[in-house]
Amino acid sequence: MEKIISLCKRRGFVFASSEIYGGFQAVYDYGPYGVLLANNIKQAWWQAMVQAREDIVGLDSSIFMHPKIWEASGHISGFSDPLSECKNCHTRSRVDHLLEEVNVFADEKMSEDEVNKIFDEHKSKIKCPSCGKSDFSEAKKFNLLVKSNLGNFTGDPMENPSYLRGETCQGIYVNYKNVVDSTRVKMPFGIAQIGKAFRNEITARQFIFRTREFEQMEMQYLTHPDNEMKEYEKLKVDRFDYYINNLGINKDNLRWHEHENLVFYAKAAFDIEYKFPFGFKELEGVHARSNYDLTQHAKFSGKDLEYKDPQTGEKYLPHIIESSVGVGRTMLAVLTDAFVEEELGPEDTRIVMKFNKKLAPIKVAVFPLLKNKPELVSKAREVFDMLKLKYMCEFDDNGNIGKRYRRQDEIGTPYCLTVDFDTLEDGCVTIRDRDTMKQERIKIAELTSFLAKELE
Amino acid sequence: MEKIISLCKRRGFVFASSEIYGGFQAVYDYGPYGVLLANNIKQAWWQAMVQAREDIVGLDSSIFMHPKIWEASGHISGFSDPLSECKNCHTRSRVDHLLEEVNVFADEKMSEDEVNKIFDEHKSKIKCPSCGKSDFSEAKKFNLLVKSNLGNFTGDPMENPSYLRGETCQGIYVNYKNVVDSTRVKMPFGIAQIGKAFRNEITARQFIFRTREFEQMEMQYLTHPDNEMKEYEKLKVDRFDYYINNLGINKDNLRWHEHENLVFYAKAAFDIEYKFPFGFKELEGVHARSNYDLTQHAKFSGKDLEYKDPQTGEKYLPHIIESSVGVGRTMLAVLTDAFVEEELGPEDTRIVMKFNKKLAPIKVAVFPLLKNKPELVSKAREVFDMLKLKYMCEFDDNGNIGKRYRRQDEIGTPYCLTVDFDTLEDGCVTIRDRDTMKQERIKIAELTSFLAKELE
Repeated sequence: MEKIISLCKRRGFVFASSEIYGGFQAVYDYGPYGVLLANNIKQAWWQAMVQAREDIVGLDSSIFMHPKIWEASGHISGFSDPLSECKNCHTRSRVDHLLEEVNVFADEKMSEDEVNKIFDEHKSKIKCPSCGKSDFSEAKKFNLLVKSNLGNFTGDPMENPSYLRGETCQGIYVNYKNVVDSTRVKMPFGIAQIGKAFRNEITARQFIFRTREFEQMEMQYLTHPDNEMKEYEKLKVDRFDYYINNLGINKDNLRWHEHENLVFYAKAAFDIEYKFPFGFKELEGVHARSNYDLTQHAKFSGKDLEYKDPQTGEKYLPHIIESSVGVGRTMLAVLTDAFVEEELGPEDTRIVMKFNKKLAPIKVAVFPLLKNKPELVSKAREVFDMLKLKYMCEFDDNGNIGKRYRRQDEIGTPYCLTVDFDTLEDGCVTIRDRDTMKQERIKIAELTSFLAKELE
Repeated sequence: MEKIISLCKRRGFVFASSEIYGGFQAVYDYGPYGVLLANNIKQAWWQAMVQAREDIVGLDSSIFMHPKIWEASGHISGFSDPLSECKNCHTRSRVDHLLEEVNVFADEKMSEDEVNKIFDEHKSKIKCPSCGKSDFSEAKKFNLLVKSNLGNFTGDPMENPSYLRGETCQGIYVNYKNVVDSTRVKMPFGIAQIGKAFRNEITARQFIFRTREFEQMEMQYLTHPDNEMKEYEKLKVDRFDYYINNLGINKDNLRWHEHENLVFYAKAAFDIEYKFPFGFKELEGVHARSNYDLTQHAKFSGKDLEYKDPQTGEKYLPHIIESSVGVGRTMLAVLTDAFVEEELGPEDTRIVMKFNKKLAPIKVAVFPLLKNKPELVSKAREVFDMLKLKYMCEFDDNGNIGKRYRRQDEIGTPYCLTVDFDTLEDGCVTIRDRDTMKQERIKIAELTSFLAKELE
C-alpha cells in the first residue's frame, strides 16, 4: 500500500488535498495522470452501461435536491454512525470500528442505546488508536448527511439545511417518470449516472478507499415485480464479468460477498469484493431493492409513481435492482492490480503499471533519440502531432532512452516510439512494448492501424 | 427561449430539479440526451485544451478544500452580493439587479454603505419584481460561498464551516507545485480542470445560464512575468476560434466584451459573449491575473511558491492567464445556436437541432422499416450492434418513418439509417441526412468508413 501511495504522489496520480495548507482530511485531488485514469474508468463504465446497452439511458442529476428527498430515503433519520471521543486526547473514533478491534461487530441498524450497551461491555479492553489510553465517552450517533446553507439566506441554515447528496441514486428515482415521458424506454430499463456524493465519515481511512467527498457510478434498473430476481441474476453476471473483461482485473482478486443482514425491504444484496492491499473489501454493491424507493417517494411527494404498461395497460410500482460502485475504489483496485515490481537483474528493478491498455492514462509516448538534433526532434513532433488527436500522447526528449522508458513504465504507457537517425532514412520508428519490453521497427505509415488494433 | 426550455424538458435534455417535490430552485438535472450533450461538450473542451496541447495538463481537484484557501482568495471577505427584502411580500432580490431596472449600475466592489446610498436615491422608482410594491429593506451584503459542516462533528458548523468551492481555479493554484514536481511540464504551461462549483446566488435567472450548482471548465496558464501579455493575446485568439471551429457556433453570435473596471491586480479582462435569447451575455472569461493568486497563497500558506527555471536558475512567481467557462452556459449557447424551426410546407414545420455533429447526443439512429417483420428487425439490430460500440446510437421501431425522422431531428441526430426489404437483397440501407433531409442508399459494408469520415 505504501508503495502505491508513494507512486501516486510522485507520478501525479493522487495528491492529498490542500497540501500547502497542511492538508484537508479525507479528501484527495487527482493529478495529471490520475484525472486521465479516472476519466478512462468513467468512460469504460459509461460505455458498458449506457452506450452498449439499448435498455439503459444516462442521467446527470444535481448534487443538491429538495430536502424532503432525504426524509423519504430514510437518510435523515437513519443514516448515522456511532461516535465516541477519547477523554484523554479528544480523538473521535467510530465505535463500530473500535469494537471490530476486539472482534465484536455492531450492526449499523442498532440504536444509540443498543450500541452503548455493547460498547460498555467491551470498552475496557479497547485502546484509543491515537493515544493508547482507554477512556472513552458514551457513543453518540452522528448523521452522515452533509448540511449546507445553499439557498438559505436568513435564519439558521443548520435548522433548515440543504443537504449534499449522500448517494447519487436518489436523483435517479425522483427523475424516473421524466425519463419515461421524454424518451422511448420500455420496461425493463435502467438509468445510469456518474456523479459526486458526500458523507460525513467520522474516520476516513485507507487512502482513496473511503473519502468524505467521492464519486459514484450507479445504475438503477427498473423491472416488473415478477422479473426482479431474474434481472438481478443477469445483472450479477454482467457486473462481475465487467471487471475481468472491460477493466482487465485479475479474477483471483475478485469475489462475491453476500450480506448477512438484509434490510427489511431488500430481496438480495451481494457485494463484489476486491483484494485490496488491506484485504478483501467492497468494491461494488449489487442489490435487489424491491419497490421500496419508489414507494417512499410516492408517499412523501404525494405523486403517482406507478408505471403504466403501454401494451397491457397494467399499472405497477417498478421494482429496482442496482449496481453501485465508487470511482475512487475502482481506481484503487485498478492501481493495485496494475502495480508490478520486476527484478530485471542484480540491483535493477523496474516499477511498471500494467494497466489494461484502454485505461492507461497515456497511450503512446514519442521520443526523439537526441534532443539536440533538430531533424530528430521535428520528425518526432510530426509523429506526435499525427497521433495526438486520436490518443492521449506524451512527448519526452529528456534523458537517455532507458530512463524515458522507465518513466513511462511507472505511469503505465503501453507503447513508446523512438525516432532515431534511421527513421530519417527508412520511415520506421522503434516501438517498445511496456509489458514485454520488446522493441521492434514499425513503419510510421502503419502506426495508425497498428494502434487502432491494439488500443480500441 | 420558451421554445428551447420546452424542447429541453419534452425531449429529455434538462429537467427542473426535484420536480415531484415541487422543485428545488436554481438547480437543474440533465436528462438522457442532456447528459450526452454535456459529456460531448466537456470532451470537446478537454480534447482542445489537454489532449491537443503538449503544454497543458489536466487536474481534478476536490470540491472541498482547506478553508484558508478562501481567505487567501478573498472570497470570504469580498465575494458577496447586496440583498434587499420586499417588506410587503418578503421576496428577496439582488439590489444591483433592481437598480439595473432603472438603468443605474452598482459596482460589485462597492461596500454595503455605498450600495445603500445609491439604493436610497432610486428605490422609490423601483418596484418589487414579485408583488409590484415599492417598499424595500436596507441592502445587506450576502456572501456567495456555500457553507457546510463537512468534517465538523462538534460545535457550530456555521462558525467553522467547510466551504463548497466557489470556483474551480483555486484547486489549480494550490496544486501547481505538485504538478511541477510530478510531471515534466516546463514554463509556460497550463493546468486544465472540469468540475462543479457552487454560489449562493440570491436570484438565479435565465434557465441554466445562472444556477447555484454549476460546472466549470477552467484552464490556468502559468508564464514568466515578461511573457504574460504575449501569451494572453495568443489565448484570446485560441479561445474565440474554438467556439467557431470546435463547437461550430455561428461567429455572428459571438463577440468580445472588455471589462470596464479592472480589479487592481488584473492586467486585462475580456469576456467572450454569446447572443443568448435574452441578449449578448458572458459565455467565457479570458483574464490576465498577474501573480496575484500565487502571491496570496504564498502569503497565507507560508510556502515558497516560486518557480525555479531549470535552465537559467531564475526564480520567480509565475503570472497567470485564465480561460473560464461554464458547462451549462456552453450548453445553452449550443442549444440556442442549433435550434431551427423550418417551414417545410403549409402547416408543416419541423424543429431540428442542427448541432455540430461531434456534439450531437445521438450520432446514428437505426430503424427497421416495420416493427412486425422479424427479418427487418433482426437485420436492423445487426446494423445497430455493429455501430453501437463506436458511436452513441439509438434503435427505434415505433411509428412511421417520417415520425421517427422528426423525433431524431428534435434531438439533433445527424444520420438515420433505415433497413427495408431491399436491404435484405442488396445489402444497402437508406441513410438520411438531418440537415438536407436527403436520402441515399449506402452499402452496410461502407457505413463504418462513411461515418468515420463524417463524425470523427
